[in-house]
Amino acid sequence: MGAYAILEDRFRRAALIGSAAGILGWDRAVVMPEGSADARAEQMAALGLAAREILAADDMADLLDAAAEEPLDGWQAANLREMRREWVRSAAIPPRLVEARSRAHTGCEMAWRSARPASDYAAVLPLLEEVAALTVEAGQALAAALDVPLYDALLDGFEPGGRAADIDPVFDDLAAFLPGFTDAAIARQAARPPLQIEGPFPAGRQEALGRRFMDALGFDFDRGRLDVSHHPFTGGAPGDIRITTRYDEADFLTGLYAVLHETGHAQYAAGLPLRWRHQPVGRARGMTLHESQSLLIEMQVCRGAAFMAWAAPLMAEAFGGAGPAWSADNLLALVTRVERGFIRVDADEVTYPAHVILRYRLETAMLAGDLPLADLPGAWNDGMEALLGIRPPDDRRGCLQDIHWYSGAWGYFPTYTLGAMAAAQLYAAAKSADTGIEPALAEGDFAPLYGWLGPNVHEQGSLYGTGHLIERATGRPLDAAAFKAHLAARYL
Amino acid sequence: MGAYAILEDRFRRAALIGSAAGILGWDRAVVMPEGSADARAEQMAALGLAAREILAADDMADLLDAAAEEPLDGWQAANLREMRREWVRSAAIPPRLVEARSRAHTGCEMAWRSARPASDYAAVLPLLEEVAALTVEAGQALAAALDVPLYDALLDGFEPGGRAADIDPVFDDLAAFLPGFTDAAIARQAARPPLQIEGPFPAGRQEALGRRFMDALGFDFDRGRLDVSHHPFTGGAPGDIRITTRYDEADFLTGLYAVLHETGHAQYAAGLPLRWRHQPVGRARGMTLHESQSLLIEMQVCRGAAFMAWAAPLMAEAFGGAGPAWSADNLLALVTRVERGFIRVDADEVTYPAHVILRYRLETAMLAGDLPLADLPGAWNDGMEALLGIRPPDDRRGCLQDIHWYSGAWGYFPTYTLGAMAAAQLYAAAKSADTGIEPALAEGDFAPLYGWLGPNVHEQGSLYGTGHLIERATGRPLDAAAFKAHLAARYL
Repeated sequence: MGAYAILEDRFRRAALIGSAAGILGWDRAVVMPEGSADARAEQMAALGLAAREILAADDMADLLDAAAEEPLDGWQAANLREMRREWVRSAAIPPRLVEARSRAHTGCEMAWRSARPASDYAAVLPLLEEVAALTVEAGQALAAALDVPLYDALLDGFEPGGRAADIDPVFDDLAAFLPGFTDAAIARQAARPPLQIEGPFPAGRQEALGRRFMDALGFDFDRGRLDVSHHPFTGGAPGDIRITTRYDEADFLTGLYAVLHETGHAQYAAGLPLRWRHQPVGRARGMTLHESQSLLIEMQVCRGAAFMAWAAPLMAEAFGGAGPAWSADNLLALVTRVERGFIRVDADEVTYPAHVILRYRLETAMLAGDLPLADLPGAWNDGMEALLGIRPPDDRRGCLQDIHWYSGAWGYFPTYTLGAMAAAQLYAAAKSADTGIEPALAEGDFAPLYGWLGPNVHEQGSLYGTGHLIERATGRPLDAAAFKAHLAARYL
Repeated sequence: MGAYAILEDRFRRAALIGSAAGILGWDRAVVMPEGSADARAEQMAALGLAAREILAADDMADLLDAAAEEPLDGWQAANLREMRREWVRSAAIPPRLVEARSRAHTGCEMAWRSARPASDYAAVLPLLEEVAALTVEAGQALAAALDVPLYDALLDGFEPGGRAADIDPVFDDLAAFLPGFTDAAIARQAARPPLQIEGPFPAGRQEALGRRFMDALGFDFDRGRLDVSHHPFTGGAPGDIRITTRYDEADFLTGLYAVLHETGHAQYAAGLPLRWRHQPVGRARGMTLHESQSLLIEMQVCRGAAFMAWAAPLMAEAFGGAGPAWSADNLLALVTRVERGFIRVDADEVTYPAHVILRYRLETAMLAGDLPLADLPGAWNDGMEALLGIRPPDDRRGCLQDIHWYSGAWGYFPTYTLGAMAAAQLYAAAKSADTGIEPALAEGDFAPLYGWLGPNVHEQGSLYGTGHLIERATGRPLDAAAFKAHLAARYL
């Protein structure tokens, strides 16, 4: 076997172990009994170690070098590039630090689970400080290995090749644009408040409706599942993609749009190139593109008029609804409400970027040492006031609301808004490439849309970098223009 | 770290990977979408390889030798003995043969799944011949490594230290005893046929009743689950024990007794020594003892008068049953019916050993080359006629009924009947050690029973061999005397 073939075999094994961990992760969130959490943590750690050890073999550097001398086609060469990237990242962090971080993340996340409902930031602060210190230590090691600034080294773990220097101007622009835009959108909606729809909406009917829409989106229930969990997510493994939602019998729209969002993620995962399924080049390109695929479905399409023309009668039928409250126009108004709120995960697409920009600015400041962690609550509340004009009354609705930092995910937040921008830009490009897309959506036919997304996004896996892929697909680099145009068209 | 400590660490990691595979196995049987079978097979193979590679490290032989020179306590020494046993078995089979067997088992099992309903033995014969040839090849390698005969080397995989030379006389004795005994039991029951109970029995109520009984048995739902699968089983992982059953709305007793049987397995698994959870010495001793714990609960206890005095009113209440058909006596008569049938998994405890003895005799003959696989159907039917007096009308109800041989499990069958013998012997010893056990069962109190089983069986893990453990617990080696006495007391 040549060096490249040996590498493919090893990365395949590591990927399969990772995909087994994906199923265990789904199990933990959906069916695992609570008392088994410790046993599960040990299993996950053992799988993580087994996968890392495959990448940590002494001869990896030599194999990567030797493979570069072998005749490789474009996909193989890209795969080798991604292998090296993964190996560099893995080799940069000593096993001692991996273990210390894992322990710190678990401990801090557990403390956070009690601290959040109690709004008790002080209780979790010492653990968060340890997490942050270890994050900086790992970030410095990665930064040295990748030859990029510390923040970029962390961001790279979620968005390969992402750079704060590219994000700053875009976020500054959005931060300047959104407050006035939000005022205008809210004022416009206040003039025409939508009719409310009345529940209860039985969970079983919500689920049946969600499955109906998943079918239309092309979700393959023979290779995936829909279940219930505390927070909606897309998990499982390649070839076995599992999404979750939750059902509120007083409000079916939240659970349903979570299904649509997660189905967007799922269809990206399902559309990745089968030939490269267990190889680095066959993976999703990064969290920006992943989020772009969920937001393209949830926000661009399913909160749009074409989709709602088809979907509104199905929603009414599912719950026996009738009258003007169940008209497509009114339902559309209900799912495009703009409101200033404290909680990111409940935010609409207009105010969402403010939540992200706040977190991005805070985490860069904390990592740079410019913001002591003890000062986070005040800085958070000041930032919310500046960006959104509201001040959280407590830390539960402030800096304790998100799990990310407490579980060690620093450098993740920007991908939500980069994803929203990419969703707008990709959807605009798709519609101009195929004018049949929107008319088909109005019939519940997603085939033309996925006919464009498949070759332009999903089937590309990690062949190109995110920026390169978006430029190829849309004709220009990623920016906020399409996102702003989309907001203006929908809300003004 | 000393050699022994290094070994503990490695075996712990291998055990954790195995326990992750246990969750994936549960998932496959209970929730996995069908189209994901290939993806799951690849994951399982990758986990198997990762665990085997830990045991296959070059320095294992040296570590095992060095650890034997270190000061070890009794448990550690037994753990080292079990480590060596596992390593010898693993090292005896070359990776090429492991892979060939895995592929052959998967292929044959898939063919069997279609061949069984079609009663088409010819369709699966070539694949079964390949499985058998690879089984012999592996058995010969194991036999050489363990210095035992080929059959014992295979049996050892399920029942460590088991020997055909010990089984033959017991099975010959039972084969001589049972036909006449079966006649007598059936004649006696024919004189007093039980009243039938009428369904339907809604699945939800069956499940609630099963959970009620699991609670009484001490099943910890915070570290385990009850679900539905095609065949009942006990799976999951240490600290996360998952049993399954199935519900037939026309007959609640089958599903309920499957719950009781599997709960017996589960409580053994849950009672294994926590300190040794991820070490070889902390595992269940073997399939004989595992089956003894399920049969002790299902057969010895829950088809007995003391249990039924407590359980019958709960059964009646669960389904709104009333009248003489729902009396403890009548329900007891229903769950102790003796009947000659073709299907092993449906057999009662009197006729069950005949099914096992048939399979044991056939598999020893096939492995010895004395029975060509092409002749299996005829030999099976002849054997059924000789042992049970009935002749299967087709292979679906004959040699195609069990998955074992087709999936590569040769040498497994005897453990069912050895387990039934051990159940009778252990339960007799428990009752004579604590005369409060049966009165407590009549109140639904399993604590005294588990108060004896815990220290005498469960908490011993694999500290002793099966024979040694049984002799310590019951005062004499395992034999069929208690089993025969039990049958005589219950059925004559």
